[in-house]
Amino acid sequence: MNFQSDNQSSIFPEIIEYLNDINKHSAPAYGADEFTLLAKNMLIDMFETDLQVMYVSSGTAANSIALSAISPPYGGILCSDNAHIGGDECGAPEFFTGGSKLIPLPSKDGLMLESEILKYLNSHGLHGIHEILPSAISLTQASELGTVYTPDHIKNITDIAKKHNLYSHMDGARFANACCYLDCKPADISWKSGIDILSLGTTKNGTMSCETILVFNKDIQADFERRQKRAGHLWSKNRYMAAQIIKWIENDRWINAANMANGFASNIKKILNKNKNIIIKYPVEINMVFAQIPITIQEKLKTNHVAFNPWYGDDNLTRFVASWDTKNNEIEKLEEIINNL
Amino acid sequence: MNFQSDNQSSIFPEIIEYLNDINKHSAPAYGADEFTLLAKNMLIDMFETDLQVMYVSSGTAANSIALSAISPPYGGILCSDNAHIGGDECGAPEFFTGGSKLIPLPSKDGLMLESEILKYLNSHGLHGIHEILPSAISLTQASELGTVYTPDHIKNITDIAKKHNLYSHMDGARFANACCYLDCKPADISWKSGIDILSLGTTKNGTMSCETILVFNKDIQADFERRQKRAGHLWSKNRYMAAQIIKWIENDRWINAANMANGFASNIKKILNKNKNIIIKYPVEINMVFAQIPITIQEKLKTNHVAFNPWYGDDNLTRFVASWDTKNNEIEKLEEIINNL
Amino acid sequence: MNFQSDNQSSIFPEIIEYLNDINKHSAPAYGADEFTLLAKNMLIDMFETDLQVMYVSSGTAANSIALSAISPPYGGILCSDNAHIGGDECGAPEFFTGGSKLIPLPSKDGLMLESEILKYLNSHGLHGIHEILPSAISLTQASELGTVYTPDHIKNITDIAKKHNLYSHMDGARFANACCYLDCKPADISWKSGIDILSLGTTKNGTMSCETILVFNKDIQADFERRQKRAGHLWSKNRYMAAQIIKWIENDRWINAANMANGFASNIKKILNKNKNIIIKYPVEINMVFAQIPITIQEKLKTNHVAFNPWYGDDNLTRFVASWDTKNNEIEKLEEIINNL
Amino acid sequence: MNFQSDNQSSIFPEIIEYLNDINKHSAPAYGADEFTLLAKNMLIDMFETDLQVMYVSSGTAANSIALSAISPPYGGILCSDNAHIGGDECGAPEFFTGGSKLIPLPSKDGLMLESEILKYLNSHGLHGIHEILPSAISLTQASELGTVYTPDHIKNITDIAKKHNLYSHMDGARFANACCYLDCKPADISWKSGIDILSLGTTKNGTMSCETILVFNKDIQADFERRQKRAGHLWSKNRYMAAQIIKWIENDRWINAANMANGFASNIKKILNKNKNIIIKYPVEINMVFAQIPITIQEKLKTNHVAFNPWYGDDNLTRFVASWDTKNNEIEKLEEIINNL
Repeated sequence: MNFQSDNQSSIFPEIIEYLNDINKHSAPAYGADEFTLLAKNMLIDMFETDLQVMYVSSGTAANSIALSAISPPYGGILCSDNAHIGGDECGAPEFFTGGSKLIPLPSKDGLMLESEILKYLNSHGLHGIHEILPSAISLTQASELGTVYTPDHIKNITDIAKKHNLYSHMDGARFANACCYLDCKPADISWKSGIDILSLGTTKNGTMSCETILVFNKDIQADFERRQKRAGHLWSKNRYMAAQIIKWIENDRWINAANMANGFASNIKKILNKNKNIIIKYPVEINMVFAQIPITIQEKLKTNHVAFNPWYGDDNLTRFVASWDTKNNEIEKLEEIINNL
Repeated sequence: MNFQSDNQSSIFPEIIEYLNDINKHSAPAYGADEFTLLAKNMLIDMFETDLQVMYVSSGTAANSIALSAISPPYGGILCSDNAHIGGDECGAPEFFTGGSKLIPLPSKDGLMLESEILKYLNSHGLHGIHEILPSAISLTQASELGTVYTPDHIKNITDIAKKHNLYSHMDGARFANACCYLDCKPADISWKSGIDILSLGTTKNGTMSCETILVFNKDIQADFERRQKRAGHLWSKNRYMAAQIIKWIENDRWINAANMANGFASNIKKILNKNKNIIIKYPVEINMVFAQIPITIQEKLKTNHVAFNPWYGDDNLTRFVASWDTKNNEIEKLEEIINNL
Repeated sequence: MNFQSDNQSSIFPEIIEYLNDINKHSAPAYGADEFTLLAKNMLIDMFETDLQVMYVSSGTAANSIALSAISPPYGGILCSDNAHIGGDECGAPEFFTGGSKLIPLPSKDGLMLESEILKYLNSHGLHGIHEILPSAISLTQASELGTVYTPDHIKNITDIAKKHNLYSHMDGARFANACCYLDCKPADISWKSGIDILSLGTTKNGTMSCETILVFNKDIQADFERRQKRAGHLWSKNRYMAAQIIKWIENDRWINAANMANGFASNIKKILNKNKNIIIKYPVEINMVFAQIPITIQEKLKTNHVAFNPWYGDDNLTRFVASWDTKNNEIEKLEEIINNL
Repeated sequence: MNFQSDNQSSIFPEIIEYLNDINKHSAPAYGADEFTLLAKNMLIDMFETDLQVMYVSSGTAANSIALSAISPPYGGILCSDNAHIGGDECGAPEFFTGGSKLIPLPSKDGLMLESEILKYLNSHGLHGIHEILPSAISLTQASELGTVYTPDHIKNITDIAKKHNLYSHMDGARFANACCYLDCKPADISWKSGIDILSLGTTKNGTMSCETILVFNKDIQADFERRQKRAGHLWSKNRYMAAQIIKWIENDRWINAANMANGFASNIKKILNKNKNIIIKYPVEINMVFAQIPITIQEKLKTNHVAFNPWYGDDNLTRFVASWDTKNNEIEKLEEIINNL
């Protein structure tokens, strides 16, 4: 039973079939092929708006290239104190932006708070140019703690951003899971809520290696591809990336997969909840369960081949992640183990 | 007939089959899986030495991350005036190194000359710390103009490098093609000839997206993975990368593919040579033919659906590239067209 | 009455006289002159150890160049949440290091706490190379809030640093004031307490433009001058910088000036303390007084031409800074005004 | 007899007097003082146009900060193959711009050629975004080889720049000497000839440490001061910098000093010319003489305490630089020595 991370999951078999289908002939490189065009059109349909799309090989790359286009080297990027860009990208945003400073703000269950954003922006600036220039806000949807911003919450934050001349970025590593939880359309929690640029993750949700940057705000499109190229993220055989997106979108495969993952997590939560010594730490809204589990129980779970991750904060805190290919019998076994504790 | 670039070619069907095989289960992320281990061991066998390996998504990334580990921000990197790192990577080496300066030196048919390297190193330094610190040499094997360094040539250059405290990097985007031409082992033109770090390309020769950095010199391995991570080139589902390498090496598939590509180019050269108005510009040693072709003939070729690329220098200069999946009938048709000019 | 900042103060008249003295002839550039040598020897005497010295034009430059030599681009620099490098240098440390991340830790009265440092270091690393590599600690002596580290406090922190393979940097913008408060020798709170590299400020204490980097730890001296040069901080006419240091050290001018500044601040504190509505916020240990002053009183002070600065935190918080050239009658007038409130 | 460099010269005594005059009181920091305002107004008068001015401590800083405002990280900066920014700044332009690439073009006597600029721009771009984006041209006035661009020459080049969407920068380390040679007004060879941004050097011509950036083109002024600050080049006691400019401009001191320096060089040229074995290599238009001198003669000169610098190219090439404070008797002695060879 592997509940360590959704980036350990396998990929949609339909993608591999399709890779085989499109492999008969040579095709123009660097995205000048027909599959790249088709994928773009499918993304435009999915998001109900024109957009620019770039493919990169990791969420870290997507976030960092996106941020480099909206924050100058002397800029500041407001984010949650749990943000992946702050703690899990080994300084990539600083690298790509040429030195922008991340401003981690206190959050609630991983979600940024309007009050904290305003507090920071209003107290900032006493020393003028000696301070960095706040330039962007980055929201993680769903958050690193498995919680979800509502469209209104996003709108409130991007409204503040606009008022203060900040761009709004969304780290959508688990965007699909958030859509599923909110039962909303992709547009509702992206450009319609004021997001200028989105890192749309698909790798955790069924593809092999396909993270994308979607640019909604046309003001920030200039020279974007040179940023991608000079970061080594311009694929020569881009059609094999586009192929993944095509099959990811086709037949609502993306939202169905997210639905399965979220459902499994919901089951995990219920199972863990049965044990009085286990405390669910955050609302379980997507495919992740954060649980405080006494060390003795953790040891027993490990002995029974239940794999999960420790998490920051205290020794008892753990993270269980389900994915689209979590197996029903994994869940059943977990239940059995918990019942027998 | 598409002779534009080997990065437009398709991928080994065996790779896609294998992707399917390994897709049954989840597996540890970030290279902690069994396939990544197997691929590493196969590379160790192939190169007959212990090594560190990292997977990245483009040759630009491989070169730039490699260079960032061997040149400080105030360093200089000597290279051919035709080097891909200088002209075709949109400043990626400067980006990754934090500002190192590329020093393009006059070359012969794309190959660096010992005399020019010595001339530069001996004339450098008059202004001490006002000048950059020469820190690395980067050789392209095979060169951008389709020519190949012999082991002795490489050894001579890396000897100079060592004497002057420079590291030696090799851009091996077409390393397999060079091995094929020289009929040598990979070790002969890499670490045995003094190369400290190699960008081993496979994408142009049968894989989907698999460029690797191989570190031979143990002095330069420290913190390498953090450089990879913060560039967004650490793959979560690394097993699908490793899988490509496994099938690329297996059964000498890599050298056989290079052999086919080189052979096709040899044929193209012979065909073009038949026309007295076409001049072959550089020795054809791998899978690329550079030919000066009068514009009128170029137009006729295009009318006949022969795709090739113009090249830097003058209007008549063109590049034809063959690949492992060039078709025999493409060569035959080209011959027919040239004969009928 | 100008109590806004010690960087508004004038410079020792002896320095200007000396500039005139050494201005008769040309002299070698870039520090190859006799005055630069003399200044270095005087610094060696003052610090009782061999050292490397570089002159730069601002404390921001001194701090940032120093940090760039001890933290890699993917490194982390622990500092107080009040540190000048964090809030008042517009991202300079990030710029010079190529992207290192500052880690602001909760402090007490501006001073770093061993407990918080240990807490961070012990909780760090759960995600391995996905996290930055803690590489340096930076202490501000005296702190931004006017408090002073004892030698033991520094030693405790640098011991932790060494244990975790971190270098120790000191931002000594007000180093002289701290020496004065502690009645100790410069060596006691620098290399003898484990500091590897020191930004020694003099501009706030009697010079015109003379900030220095002193390197004690010989491990970190390599290529340091190229870092200085490529930042545009290598002075051509360096003798006019060295001249300032010579006169700053000569006849204990530096410590006498700090003594005067500290004394004036002590007086300001006593004066403000007389008013029951004014609260002294932090211990007054050097030349700065942080006082909570009701807005109505602040207005009256301004009407009476008392200049001071608002400070971060709340509307009532203010900063008064004395300097070596604060005038006795400025203090007397302030007393008069406070008495008449 | 010291003819090594004009940056070894002393400073105008009037400047030191004035430093003393303005040293009576404290004054606002960071350029909010009355002297900074006066200096700016004097520069506006001198250049007959509105402008933005920043003070930095070296020409390297001035050039690099200026370039960072007009070239993106993925940009290219065209310059002479003799440019100071290319060979003598240890990669500072690459550092400040975040990785822009300098494009050194063949020049004539140090001066850029319209033909070479056009040749580069017209051959560039075959590989689209794989190549850097040409973004700026940087002219050195006077050139590193002591030659001077006429206003028409500048205009021709900046016209090409504008046509290709490039900004035009001038490295004016010896701008005064060029004005003197051309007998023109500062405006004639700067903004009136299409220069967008100028590094105006004064340190080699009578000041202590005062290099400035003058921004003429209002399009590029945004956030400029944050670039200065985060490079550590924002002076706290800026009035002592402004003071230098005030006295440098006052009473035409700047052009008179340049006139003296140029005149001395003219004399040196005549003296060296007397010896048939000495060849003057480039036109002597400002205060520098480049002469090919047989080694045996060089040795004799050194024995007679004549100090000069070797120069790049061949062993015989030397550089003699005069400055405003070169002494008449130094010239006379040189003549005597040459006559007695």
